[in-house]
Amino acid sequence: MLSGGSPWSLATGRRSGPGAAVGAALNKLTAMTKSFGSDNHAGTHPAVMRAISAANTGDAVAYGADPWTERATAELRRLCGAKGEVFLVLNGSGANVLGLGLLLGRHEAVICAESAHINTDECGAAERILGTKLLTVPAPGGKLTPELIASRLSGRGDEHFSQPGAVAITQATELGTCYSLAELGKIRDFCAANGLRVFMDGARLANAAAYLGCTLGDLAEHADVLSFGGTKNGAMGAEAVIVMRPADAVIAPYLRKQHMQLSSKMRFLAAQFIALLDGELWLANARHANAMAARLAAGLAGVAGVEVVHPVQSDAVFARLDPQHIAELQRVWIFHVWDEATSVVRWMTAFDTQESDVDAFLASIATVTGARTA
Amino acid sequence: MLSGGSPWSLATGRRSGPGAAVGAALNKLTAMTKSFGSDNHAGTHPAVMRAISAANTGDAVAYGADPWTERATAELRRLCGAKGEVFLVLNGSGANVLGLGLLLGRHEAVICAESAHINTDECGAAERILGTKLLTVPAPGGKLTPELIASRLSGRGDEHFSQPGAVAITQATELGTCYSLAELGKIRDFCAANGLRVFMDGARLANAAAYLGCTLGDLAEHADVLSFGGTKNGAMGAEAVIVMRPADAVIAPYLRKQHMQLSSKMRFLAAQFIALLDGELWLANARHANAMAARLAAGLAGVAGVEVVHPVQSDAVFARLDPQHIAELQRVWIFHVWDEATSVVRWMTAFDTQESDVDAFLASIATVTGARTA
Amino acid sequence: MLSGGSPWSLATGRRSGPGAAVGAALNKLTAMTKSFGSDNHAGTHPAVMRAISAANTGDAVAYGADPWTERATAELRRLCGAKGEVFLVLNGSGANVLGLGLLLGRHEAVICAESAHINTDECGAAERILGTKLLTVPAPGGKLTPELIASRLSGRGDEHFSQPGAVAITQATELGTCYSLAELGKIRDFCAANGLRVFMDGARLANAAAYLGCTLGDLAEHADVLSFGGTKNGAMGAEAVIVMRPADAVIAPYLRKQHMQLSSKMRFLAAQFIALLDGELWLANARHANAMAARLAAGLAGVAGVEVVHPVQSDAVFARLDPQHIAELQRVWIFHVWDEATSVVRWMTAFDTQESDVDAFLASIATVTGARTA
Amino acid sequence: MLSGGSPWSLATGRRSGPGAAVGAALNKLTAMTKSFGSDNHAGTHPAVMRAISAANTGDAVAYGADPWTERATAELRRLCGAKGEVFLVLNGSGANVLGLGLLLGRHEAVICAESAHINTDECGAAERILGTKLLTVPAPGGKLTPELIASRLSGRGDEHFSQPGAVAITQATELGTCYSLAELGKIRDFCAANGLRVFMDGARLANAAAYLGCTLGDLAEHADVLSFGGTKNGAMGAEAVIVMRPADAVIAPYLRKQHMQLSSKMRFLAAQFIALLDGELWLANARHANAMAARLAAGLAGVAGVEVVHPVQSDAVFARLDPQHIAELQRVWIFHVWDEATSVVRWMTAFDTQESDVDAFLASIATVTGARTA
Repeated sequence: MLSGGSPWSLATGRRSGPGAAVGAALNKLTAMTKSFGSDNHAGTHPAVMRAISAANTGDAVAYGADPWTERATAELRRLCGAKGEVFLVLNGSGANVLGLGLLLGRHEAVICAESAHINTDECGAAERILGTKLLTVPAPGGKLTPELIASRLSGRGDEHFSQPGAVAITQATELGTCYSLAELGKIRDFCAANGLRVFMDGARLANAAAYLGCTLGDLAEHADVLSFGGTKNGAMGAEAVIVMRPADAVIAPYLRKQHMQLSSKMRFLAAQFIALLDGELWLANARHANAMAARLAAGLAGVAGVEVVHPVQSDAVFARLDPQHIAELQRVWIFHVWDEATSVVRWMTAFDTQESDVDAFLASIATVTGARTA
Repeated sequence: MLSGGSPWSLATGRRSGPGAAVGAALNKLTAMTKSFGSDNHAGTHPAVMRAISAANTGDAVAYGADPWTERATAELRRLCGAKGEVFLVLNGSGANVLGLGLLLGRHEAVICAESAHINTDECGAAERILGTKLLTVPAPGGKLTPELIASRLSGRGDEHFSQPGAVAITQATELGTCYSLAELGKIRDFCAANGLRVFMDGARLANAAAYLGCTLGDLAEHADVLSFGGTKNGAMGAEAVIVMRPADAVIAPYLRKQHMQLSSKMRFLAAQFIALLDGELWLANARHANAMAARLAAGLAGVAGVEVVHPVQSDAVFARLDPQHIAELQRVWIFHVWDEATSVVRWMTAFDTQESDVDAFLASIATVTGARTA
Repeated sequence: MLSGGSPWSLATGRRSGPGAAVGAALNKLTAMTKSFGSDNHAGTHPAVMRAISAANTGDAVAYGADPWTERATAELRRLCGAKGEVFLVLNGSGANVLGLGLLLGRHEAVICAESAHINTDECGAAERILGTKLLTVPAPGGKLTPELIASRLSGRGDEHFSQPGAVAITQATELGTCYSLAELGKIRDFCAANGLRVFMDGARLANAAAYLGCTLGDLAEHADVLSFGGTKNGAMGAEAVIVMRPADAVIAPYLRKQHMQLSSKMRFLAAQFIALLDGELWLANARHANAMAARLAAGLAGVAGVEVVHPVQSDAVFARLDPQHIAELQRVWIFHVWDEATSVVRWMTAFDTQESDVDAFLASIATVTGARTA
Repeated sequence: MLSGGSPWSLATGRRSGPGAAVGAALNKLTAMTKSFGSDNHAGTHPAVMRAISAANTGDAVAYGADPWTERATAELRRLCGAKGEVFLVLNGSGANVLGLGLLLGRHEAVICAESAHINTDECGAAERILGTKLLTVPAPGGKLTPELIASRLSGRGDEHFSQPGAVAITQATELGTCYSLAELGKIRDFCAANGLRVFMDGARLANAAAYLGCTLGDLAEHADVLSFGGTKNGAMGAEAVIVMRPADAVIAPYLRKQHMQLSSKMRFLAAQFIALLDGELWLANARHANAMAARLAAGLAGVAGVEVVHPVQSDAVFARLDPQHIAELQRVWIFHVWDEATSVVRWMTAFDTQESDVDAFLASIATVTGARTA
């Protein structure tokens, strides 16, 4: 497995700039190893692919006035207990920026964790598109608390200070942890008492529901607007923005269009959700991915030189290990170095990660770290 | 065919607002008639669907660092003679706003036809996302000319006036016409001489190439940045932004991300273009759609009470007829009233429109207008 | 007077670009002739200057928490019958963009006359700062009507179309005309019935009140938010944004700050309004400027070759005359060519225009046009 | 002096919201004590006021095409050694946002200290107007270093990360400290080597020049664009944006207009700078304010219970003292609590602070803290 000379020896798994010639490498590699780089390195779940094909039956009115969209959004609304509406969009940044846009006054700012995807990983889309400011807080485990939120509330009512109008939380978080329902309840209550709206970035909402053993509705009731991510759960590329109250949905169709998130052949987005919702495939997919992360974490327990740094509560394992060991592993395996300064990596599983993938990866890790021979 | 009581009697073919319950109607209708409402009422071309499925082979690095994206963008670059780069995006508005964003200085405005899609049909996305102003010109047949462009150039160098930095043209236009290569050359030369950049909205670029009998490169060389639309040509949902010169591409990756147009599982966008480019399927699709529009126009020649109001040079027929006749036709057929004031409708064909669809539609038109019995 | 060789022979009265060396010319010229170029070519009314000096009495808390601001805003609120609040800003564009920002939803557009200052003369500030679209209408005499407004309302509720949320009118208009109170009432009623808010650009509100013989309150009651311009009325540089209802004022302090319109030493803005409001100086100034424009228009009645093209209802005279005559006049007099294509010029008076200035200007016009000898 | 019942007992010196009725209090108070709340609590220097009055000599062409503006900008250009141009604007936020706008690509972000005025005190104007993201760094004493800047450079070239294009430094800083010329040189060199532009917020540039004993040119050469603040130095309200290289100035006139920072009667802004530059009044004012702060700091040396927390290098003294002592002092004196959590206050002097003001304030402090009797 640790054959030298892999073209991935320097790969970050992220596009490293225009023209990075990784294509050939990828072809070779994907035949060999499962990526632990991201849950969106996985392809499309076969049932989703079938649903997309099945939706290809002649004409349908564009932009969502079709029966697939009607069915998918109605079902999502029902599952989330939303009295408002559901809007399908094209990707996760699109869901986040639309969701925040629905909750923010023209002048308002957003309180979020420093580690929030909207802060670290969207190239400043929220600032660029909404003109808002992100008031960030260092948040252990990626989770905000009423106390942390309160720490960014000074200056309310003073025109010189940015005025927070919404709090953005991510469930499951970017660090692989989950808010408990009790924690969510405290945030919701604090926000309600302080005139703050709650947006929940649910790119991995399924993983949180699977981990907590709760319904989507149990999670949704703690937010004013939330997203439900299909893409990382086995969709080809589809996200839903769920607006809990009708009043917050009024401008959503227009904002979605202005944000370039309105798909013309919408039925193909809707079909993806129909497949994921059918027979609770979304839950099975999330449970499986979570189980694979748990298996990986469990396997690491016996490995000296690897420290799991966050509770493993979804489909991600964050671990600290020796930089040289990281480099050796990246010769064969695809994953991200999360923080070079602290030598922490992120290993992600997906709906299609196999037990054998995890075991092979664990064996490599053990070999590299010298914990035991392969 | 003119059976009464169709639930489409009031249908505009556009979503008429949240909750419009058109699903059931659609199911019934699509079994009966081909939509002439839009080329994006059509589904996905079977070859495109196969390519999407074929790309679903395990893992691939996300965000475009995959071999499908490499192949599709390389091929598009070659076909267009672009020395810059190609960026795949999620829909037409995304392509237009990204393309303009690459060409505009922070303070600059855009000159475009009043009938331009960016002006009439994108809910003000360009203004909202780019903060730019559209300096519109009434343009016969939807086509700008150097003279029309010049009419919006007064005030350059005066800080009180909006400063045009780019000209946006659509090829084929929103009115179904095409710029000839000579016309494009005059615009390009005028713009070059006047410090203006050219953006070409190519949502229907294939139809223009098919009509003009030219290559994509013949069209691309008249623009600084252009889009090449897959969606209206048989894709499921994919557009390409082609940047002709390297310098204009530098900020494109970041702007695409900020504009929420970066797809994570990019290979599924790329696969669509691979299918369209393979064996020039894009050209065959466009030729067919154009031929169906031509057949429709030809059939209208003998119909009293129907006036074709623009040259039919792509996949659209714009016609003026009696408002009551429009209403009767809309009981069965799906199409847009383009301008209620002048009683002009738009009838569009697509890659999958059949001769029999056109003939049945013509028969209905004839019956309704009383020109001849069905 | 028509001595040749004036350095103003090519002057437009507008800065024609960086480095335009007009300083020396100006020094010579201002000793000779009164500008008819703009009401902001005039200086500061002596009473305003005295009030500014008088406010310079040691310390005052910054940003408006001072007694001058309290007095000025309270008085403006009273005069306009505003139940909301008054916000002082730094210039006319600042007032317009703030006012519109208070009335527009995040996604909304503005209906205005093509000739509106916000459309023609602010370099696209509204689009740039608010991300809004201006839906323009050609408006005879610069005045909107319910019918003209209605012409831009198609597509409401359709997410593809820009959604107008406010109507912007200018009183007095950019073409020197005034809406009658009856006309304003019709617009207000139409807007109220159609879910549109009304913003009134009152850069020359004083001139309108003077012309109509009505109070500021009579005008203000037709708007949701309006501006009251000090600068063109004799202030050094101060405008007020008057918010008629408290709910619309809630975000104004924050938006004013974000728009960089919050003055730190606010008392010096407030003092200007205090002077203008004291003894109705604003009204006297406006009446005088209007009277000078009327005198000019009356004097033109007997001049062949000069056609007044808009009713003279404030401090501006728009006239059509031979391009060569325009060029000759501009050798000595400062004024704007409003529309080169139609050979229309704008001649403006101000609070400090003297009867002798008007008469001298009329004599020049007569000489140039050959109507009579000087 | 410590008479009870002052209406200022709870005053923060900032407007605490709409309707705060501080007017009467202020009238009483300003007769008694000098504010240590802000250098913009001071009025206008008499020489500036005279210059404003002197500029009120009949007509002048608007928007800066006047001899005062020509003179002021030429002199500022000369003093700063700028090969580009100088643009007068209306306030400090206007200068900052314009300056950054000239240096940032459409997609770029700004690196700045957490304590930067643009981050803490402008209500998110930079994000709102420019759509940029501020990448903040905790900076001891408010001063960035190459190392601190470098800490925000990870992710360059990766489209998911915000891309810093400019570094914003403040000189003198918001914490009353000054960058030495050597420190500025290191930042300039680091930025040049790393493709970063430098914006220098010079709201108190005069104080820095006075403290360092250097010329404006010595400071300006370390920036690509800088501001030179008039308002805190004795102007009524005027700031200059100095663009060091011609290429960066090209879009400035348009951006200034779009940002609503173009004054119509510009001569009155220019006259303020003419007065400040005449006989180096700006330097005398800054030296005096600095000396008063130094006197205050020196006087505190002997006061137990008061800890000066930043080097006093301009016109501000930051001190930590007991919260109850702060409250007692605020019964009579106006100043800001800078950080309630750490019980740190800011005391500012101004061009018109008298030695006797400082001494009286010191006496109060001593009394309150019990260090010695008054």
